[in-house]
Amino acid sequence: MDFRDVVAAKRDGAALSQEDIRSFVLAFSRGEVPDHLAASFLMAAFIRGLDSKETLALTSAMVESGATLSLKGVSRPKVDKHSTGGVADGVTLVFAPLAAALGLAVGKLSGRGLGHTGGTLDKLESIPGFRTDLAADDFERQVERIGCAVAAQSSELVPADGALYALRDATATVPSIPLIAASVMSKKLAVESDLILLDVKAGSGAFMKTPEDADALAEACMDLSGQWGREARAAVTDMSQPLGEAVGNALEVAEAVEVLRGERGGRLTDLALEFSVVAQRALLDLDEAEARLRAERALSSGNAAEAFRGMVEAQGGDPSVVDDPGAVLPGAPVVVPVLAEEPGYLAGVDAEGVGRIAAVLGAGRARKEDPVDPAVGLILTVKVGDRTERRGEIGRIHAAEEDAAGAAAERLLASLRWSEKPVSPPPLVYRWRESPNG
Amino acid sequence: MDFRDVVAAKRDGAALSQEDIRSFVLAFSRGEVPDHLAASFLMAAFIRGLDSKETLALTSAMVESGATLSLKGVSRPKVDKHSTGGVADGVTLVFAPLAAALGLAVGKLSGRGLGHTGGTLDKLESIPGFRTDLAADDFERQVERIGCAVAAQSSELVPADGALYALRDATATVPSIPLIAASVMSKKLAVESDLILLDVKAGSGAFMKTPEDADALAEACMDLSGQWGREARAAVTDMSQPLGEAVGNALEVAEAVEVLRGERGGRLTDLALEFSVVAQRALLDLDEAEARLRAERALSSGNAAEAFRGMVEAQGGDPSVVDDPGAVLPGAPVVVPVLAEEPGYLAGVDAEGVGRIAAVLGAGRARKEDPVDPAVGLILTVKVGDRTERRGEIGRIHAAEEDAAGAAAERLLASLRWSEKPVSPPPLVYRWRESPNG
Repeated sequence: MDFRDVVAAKRDGAALSQEDIRSFVLAFSRGEVPDHLAASFLMAAFIRGLDSKETLALTSAMVESGATLSLKGVSRPKVDKHSTGGVADGVTLVFAPLAAALGLAVGKLSGRGLGHTGGTLDKLESIPGFRTDLAADDFERQVERIGCAVAAQSSELVPADGALYALRDATATVPSIPLIAASVMSKKLAVESDLILLDVKAGSGAFMKTPEDADALAEACMDLSGQWGREARAAVTDMSQPLGEAVGNALEVAEAVEVLRGERGGRLTDLALEFSVVAQRALLDLDEAEARLRAERALSSGNAAEAFRGMVEAQGGDPSVVDDPGAVLPGAPVVVPVLAEEPGYLAGVDAEGVGRIAAVLGAGRARKEDPVDPAVGLILTVKVGDRTERRGEIGRIHAAEEDAAGAAAERLLASLRWSEKPVSPPPLVYRWRESPNG
Repeated sequence: MDFRDVVAAKRDGAALSQEDIRSFVLAFSRGEVPDHLAASFLMAAFIRGLDSKETLALTSAMVESGATLSLKGVSRPKVDKHSTGGVADGVTLVFAPLAAALGLAVGKLSGRGLGHTGGTLDKLESIPGFRTDLAADDFERQVERIGCAVAAQSSELVPADGALYALRDATATVPSIPLIAASVMSKKLAVESDLILLDVKAGSGAFMKTPEDADALAEACMDLSGQWGREARAAVTDMSQPLGEAVGNALEVAEAVEVLRGERGGRLTDLALEFSVVAQRALLDLDEAEARLRAERALSSGNAAEAFRGMVEAQGGDPSVVDDPGAVLPGAPVVVPVLAEEPGYLAGVDAEGVGRIAAVLGAGRARKEDPVDPAVGLILTVKVGDRTERRGEIGRIHAAEEDAAGAAAERLLASLRWSEKPVSPPPLVYRWRESPNG
């Protein structure tokens, strides 16, 4: 088989057979298709598109390229949750223990932060002692016993995705809906679950800049899940501004602990609650009101915080982070307030810019190999629509050095847009989608 | 500069700036752009196309990637000639000495045969002693002294073309008009000349299967030449059947010698004459009738054959090939006639198939490194429209072994299509194009 013929067919706009795609992807994954030929395939697929069946074939082949995780030792209903990446997006930190407290199981394999988005693994590892390199058996036992675990994705799962993603990143073929959908869903479908929840972010801090683009990705992912036969829901949610207030690893854990203890409202809390409501409706057959009540009680009762404590303890972290995050988590040597320059209503945020400020402070990384500083980051307390007085405090910079803090404060102010007139806040959730026959 | 941005712009259908293309190609040529990124660029350029200015920028950068040949020591008007490749295409073998006999200079850098098409270097090297690895100085002196030289293209000329072509071949990005035009013209523009003549083949034995596609390539090449400021003419010519009768290296030299001695008419002779007429009109300011008369006389007088003798001698070959090709050139041990199975008119030829039969006999090569057998090949004496009797001889196979000869004879018959009714021969030249302001 000459794989150039497969590439030529896609180049000329043909729909490829399932077997052609499967052979190509598996051969690539075995190292039998050179990178340059895979690159030309990716560009052809990018421009010509992949239809629903081709995208499924790609996704299936990626799953087939590696091991899968059955989680068959887990007796609770299993829900997996994935975000396409945003700024101050601590939903997983809250959702996993909250779902566990509600009788569900969340066995979450996660990645590290890259560029302007944070990574759940990096955040959890800011808790002293916390380990994310769990063996599959330990991971499964923890999910069964505590109801949640968050671990690093093994390189044995969906190896073709890692290889293809690296090649896409190097060849300007990343922003393609079918390729993104296959990448996202292959990782979810390789792990057994009863429900997949996707949080598809839309806005200045997200990969998808508009709700329409995000919705197209959500639709492609739900289509894949439906064809695969896995129940799934996808929310298109706002990322035109940071979701929570904290951007930075330890800072986000501290914020999540407050949410889990029922001490903090706001958009991060609301979104974590909404995901838990959708999960309960799908898996526990509850109606919306009952599901919401249970979720709010899990926060206010301390049950969700206790599930978080259990997870932290099981994964080697200091469990007292739940009682006194400030004492347990690393703190930055320099903390400076950021003051509004003029009174006004917050009209817009360059959320990606805010994420990059935190990354430059040391909270994120430009390359996979770079280390992160768990202590640094920033707090932005204003949301779009909020009114601020002149010289009112709108946030804080947590930095390793004074100079870096000053520069970050200036850049933070420059990433905000103000209006003299009142501004309406954007919706939190634009829409939900579900897998066909889901 | 992140070259992924250049690729992304082409991916999204933008026209690239001259400087972007130049930087990309020169960096690729220096090994600073990885093959996978160049491959994604080539696929994006293939699908999105390159406009006239982009194609010029690509061509210029390819020329800039290496050395150029000025031929400033040549006092005669210089004409370069290139064919896009066909079967039994011995035009260069005839044209170069014919033009020399007409007072023009042809300094021709050529390539080797690959796949079903023969290469002028391989053909000339079937003459015992003939050398094609000439130093630039010797090449230039020979062109001045004799009026023609045919040598192997140095790897110092247009190195980016060789690298890009190899990558295109490996990534299903070969058949793109702008990419082909840039490849063809970069090699011609890197060598100084007063006129470029292109023979763009169309039909079953050519890369371009239809006259329309060939004409589009001719137009792109003339456009490039016009933008560059180099005078050029392009003919779209028939390759729906082999041009001459001989397919195979020594066999084609023998046929060319007959043409040069004025002893053979037919389509190969007619096309070589037509190119010499066009060259004289452009460079010597002659009218068509006068140019044709001079060319015919150069053949009948023996002057063209003497120019060929001079070239062969200057390049180390046995000059008596002009007097008795059969005695000088290597002959195949097995020669078998091919007889028509039924009477009829030749209606069509799978000319690529005919080329492949010769290649399988040993006259051609599948890979650049393969050796060729100079002696083997085939003769096909019938042209489309010719009538043949049952058991009439239509050709001969020249093979190394009986078995190979028998298989080739069968395949040759299978590559011909016959009709009971008369068939019109196809045109020899579909049209001529010239460079704008040429």
